[in-house]
Amino acid sequence: MKWNVYLSGEIHTDWREQIIQGCREADLPVEFTSAVTDHDASDAAGDVLGAESSHFWRDHKSAKVNAIRTKTQIERCDIAVVRFGDKYKQWNAAFDAGFCAALGKPYITLHSADIIHPLKEVDSAAMAWAQTPQQVIELLAYVINAK
Amino acid sequence: MKWNVYLSGEIHTDWREQIIQGCREADLPVEFTSAVTDHDASDAAGDVLGAESSHFWRDHKSAKVNAIRTKTQIERCDIAVVRFGDKYKQWNAAFDAGFCAALGKPYITLHSADIIHPLKEVDSAAMAWAQTPQQVIELLAYVINAK
Amino acid sequence: MKWNVYLSGEIHTDWREQIIQGCREADLPVEFTSAVTDHDASDAAGDVLGAESSHFWRDHKSAKVNAIRTKTQIERCDIAVVRFGDKYKQWNAAFDAGFCAALGKPYITLHSADIIHPLKEVDSAAMAWAQTPQQVIELLAYVINAK
Amino acid sequence: MKWNVYLSGEIHTDWREQIIQGCREADLPVEFTSAVTDHDASDAAGDVLGAESSHFWRDHKSAKVNAIRTKTQIERCDIAVVRFGDKYKQWNAAFDAGFCAALGKPYITLHSADIIHPLKEVDSAAMAWAQTPQQVIELLAYVINAK
Amino acid sequence: MKWNVYLSGEIHTDWREQIIQGCREADLPVEFTSAVTDHDASDAAGDVLGAESSHFWRDHKSAKVNAIRTKTQIERCDIAVVRFGDKYKQWNAAFDAGFCAALGKPYITLHSADIIHPLKEVDSAAMAWAQTPQQVIELLAYVINAK
Amino acid sequence: MKWNVYLSGEIHTDWREQIIQGCREADLPVEFTSAVTDHDASDAAGDVLGAESSHFWRDHKSAKVNAIRTKTQIERCDIAVVRFGDKYKQWNAAFDAGFCAALGKPYITLHSADIIHPLKEVDSAAMAWAQTPQQVIELLAYVINAK
Amino acid sequence: MKWNVYLSGEIHTDWREQIIQGCREADLPVEFTSAVTDHDASDAAGDVLGAESSHFWRDHKSAKVNAIRTKTQIERCDIAVVRFGDKYKQWNAAFDAGFCAALGKPYITLHSADIIHPLKEVDSAAMAWAQTPQQVIELLAYVINAK
Amino acid sequence: MKWNVYLSGEIHTDWREQIIQGCREADLPVEFTSAVTDHDASDAAGDVLGAESSHFWRDHKSAKVNAIRTKTQIERCDIAVVRFGDKYKQWNAAFDAGFCAALGKPYITLHSADIIHPLKEVDSAAMAWAQTPQQVIELLAYVINAK
Repeated sequence: MKWNVYLSGEIHTDWREQIIQGCREADLPVEFTSAVTDHDASDAAGDVLGAESSHFWRDHKSAKVNAIRTKTQIERCDIAVVRFGDKYKQWNAAFDAGFCAALGKPYITLHSADIIHPLKEVDSAAMAWAQTPQQVIELLAYVINAK
Repeated sequence: MKWNVYLSGEIHTDWREQIIQGCREADLPVEFTSAVTDHDASDAAGDVLGAESSHFWRDHKSAKVNAIRTKTQIERCDIAVVRFGDKYKQWNAAFDAGFCAALGKPYITLHSADIIHPLKEVDSAAMAWAQTPQQVIELLAYVINAK
Repeated sequence: MKWNVYLSGEIHTDWREQIIQGCREADLPVEFTSAVTDHDASDAAGDVLGAESSHFWRDHKSAKVNAIRTKTQIERCDIAVVRFGDKYKQWNAAFDAGFCAALGKPYITLHSADIIHPLKEVDSAAMAWAQTPQQVIELLAYVINAK
Repeated sequence: MKWNVYLSGEIHTDWREQIIQGCREADLPVEFTSAVTDHDASDAAGDVLGAESSHFWRDHKSAKVNAIRTKTQIERCDIAVVRFGDKYKQWNAAFDAGFCAALGKPYITLHSADIIHPLKEVDSAAMAWAQTPQQVIELLAYVINAK
Repeated sequence: MKWNVYLSGEIHTDWREQIIQGCREADLPVEFTSAVTDHDASDAAGDVLGAESSHFWRDHKSAKVNAIRTKTQIERCDIAVVRFGDKYKQWNAAFDAGFCAALGKPYITLHSADIIHPLKEVDSAAMAWAQTPQQVIELLAYVINAK
Repeated sequence: MKWNVYLSGEIHTDWREQIIQGCREADLPVEFTSAVTDHDASDAAGDVLGAESSHFWRDHKSAKVNAIRTKTQIERCDIAVVRFGDKYKQWNAAFDAGFCAALGKPYITLHSADIIHPLKEVDSAAMAWAQTPQQVIELLAYVINAK
Repeated sequence: MKWNVYLSGEIHTDWREQIIQGCREADLPVEFTSAVTDHDASDAAGDVLGAESSHFWRDHKSAKVNAIRTKTQIERCDIAVVRFGDKYKQWNAAFDAGFCAALGKPYITLHSADIIHPLKEVDSAAMAWAQTPQQVIELLAYVINAK
Repeated sequence: MKWNVYLSGEIHTDWREQIIQGCREADLPVEFTSAVTDHDASDAAGDVLGAESSHFWRDHKSAKVNAIRTKTQIERCDIAVVRFGDKYKQWNAAFDAGFCAALGKPYITLHSADIIHPLKEVDSAAMAWAQTPQQVIELLAYVINAK
């Protein structure tokens, strides 16, 4: 059985690479998907369709193009990992978590203990809260491989 | 036809009251629902079930009790209004927006122009972006009453 | 049992009024809903949220505001009547028909015989094709009241 | 990850071939599907089941046979591209767009700027509006391959 | 709590009237719905839309008009009662049973013991098999009123 | 807003009456539903349809008749309360909990602390665990009435 | 693209073999599934679970075992072909058709012209009516292979 | 056609191994999945995320981690086999059965005759009741391979 894992959220640290690398080392049958994590490319996703003079509509257009990808990836995934860093608003990560919750997709949150309180609604609908990528790897290994 | 409108997000200003009052004055057939907005009561929602020594589990327990209410309200609503203020993380508001998006519930975001960029994913799945409660009232009046 | 009928499409003739009036005369327990049929008001639906310099985005914004209403109405309806006139593109009517088809909502098309061929896909997913409002009234009377 | 793209609408220009060719050159993992685009074959789809004396029923029968194919293709697709040319009514394209919208399938519209206004409802539920096949190819390349 | 009961199938005996009368006497909070049971009226349901020279299309048109009613009634019902008599094919009754089964609507079959074998698939997805209208009345009374 | 609460499980103590009475005293807008709690009547639910010589089929027939009621009640409810006593297997209560979980219906478990371990799967999908009917009443009052 | 076709209904003639053979000769990418067509084996499907003294329960048990197979096959299929012969009741075929209709699975009926009238409800929800296996083969070839 | 079978319930006997071995010997195209059946590992599933001082929360955390696996497996399966032994409460098995029932997944119960009565609700929604692993193997062989 192959597992499809969607990695959502923070793009400023290498948590995705750590998880992907760790799962590869553990030889887990996982396919990972993710939003485009190149910040500038993501912001410019809609530019190919023509320039916009308004910031709102440029963002809007790019966000919708990105959503073609992320909505499809979330709907296909078996598990999502949603990462919140200590900087930035990351409303898109919370949005993805809500999207998963409504679809009944199990998700794991990944964040440090100092933001437990503002994330309580997001965590309460999650299947697990991890603090390190290593914990996520171990969870995935257990979920997929334990007998 | 009666409309059911769910008001999500920021609890530190009187935007809910403004919208409810405005709709009442316009005599719109709207029933409003909302999470518990008394911050302390909301944090203590699970305390009746027994004290917790861990902050995480106290939050967890209360968040789930609150979700009994909010999940039901969102699933029943026709339209959601999701408010982001300029303070606090408000990840629960973004979570509600994602939940609405996955269910196909139309929602209107309500926030000032200076947070357009971090809210681009949330806005891109919204049906409208308003900057003032007054605009929301006018939108609702149009949606419900225009011929 | 109360029936909810959504009237979609052409706004330049009085077909809606004929159907509503005919059903009222027949004392049918029907509640009708419809998009905003005031053309200028509909085009300006989003203007309350701020002016747009681009025609595309003004249309986009208004169309989404209108969709808050029409999507809700279609999802609530038991039957839709979709009218195609001989002028204008009326792609929104065909869009509504496709939306109904995917949701499994029964719909009746209302159009003259000279546009049978370009409407064949739309008609083939319909439950009935009527050529006059009077026929629609008789259909509704039968569906609702026959023993 | 393999992507399934449904190409809907206008059949009088080579936009399908351009997109398919462009994606092949970019080596994108896309499988394309489409309605039967041979106009006469499509109109005659039901003839094998017996001749009809009525134009309406011949069209009806063929449209349903064609729908066996297109409905299945749309339900399987990840993304649809819906093309509107400047000739013909193309109500079937708008119907497909509405069908996608109700299913939550992301779709991209492809049309020139002079029909923005009549397509505003169709565009407002789309994830992107492109004006050239080349833009669609670039969008797909970004959605599928960007890191 | 109000219950909505759909009565499907055979139209040549008074089983519907017996059930309705019996539930009325037991003062059960039940609303009954049913296809049009006037055989000639049902066959002519589509005639208002124009005459047909082909028997197949006349039947087709009428059957679709009738389905506007029955599909809506089945989707709204809480329980269906599906009656098979010893005459006629009654494929529409079996069709309704399959429709209920796929929607997860509980249904009760009503037929004599001598057609157990050909009805085994229909019965196996039913919640109960009754042989008399009186049994159906007692079942409904129990389901609705027992403490 | 009216709330519909389904009470599932143990039938040997008066926990249902306590909750109903407590909610009535608190004047909560709640409608309660429940399986038939008269044990003998419930076991005999199918007897009206004819005697069975096999214990298995008598149970089977009665359980299906009871399921007409309980399935409908669960699908209509907003919240379920699932009670596990310290006697009996109560697999039907766990079955109802799983049914709720799959439908996304929020449920509250009600049981003493000494059966936490065997109920861990059931509790982990619940929105709250209460130990007394009084706690359930307070939870419902909060969920429904808090501001 | 691979197509999955479910063959439902009459088991006394070789229509299944004709369709399978014809599709093989046309080299169509179709996988066929079907209920067990060995009549005695099908009636005895549940016997392995123990003998039954009642005809009803023996049929019931076997029908449910068979439904494990057919329900799964129908839910997986892209297209169903539902065959009605001129003998027997074949209520299971009509049941399958209703099941397909409720799931939105396109189906083709296969029957002679003399049973048009009793099949009108079943035909009216079908995508095509064929009179010979050869027509079904040609339809499938068109649906799958036409350009 | 490949079949996916989920094995739920009792972990103290070798019924899983018997079924897997028997299906392998019969060369059936079945993929089996199952919860983690190592009792201690299962109870400790959440420990990697940090120690808990409360028994309830340790169980809760582990049960949710396990549910990531089991929920995914149940949603992917074609058939579930749910085993009840004569020891232990096995509420999780009944929970899985209810989950299957609500999703419309066919399941087979496997238990001895002496617990027919307490399992009547669970059995009544099952497609078959088996008493031995050998019977399950024969059922699967029939469902999958019979002609």
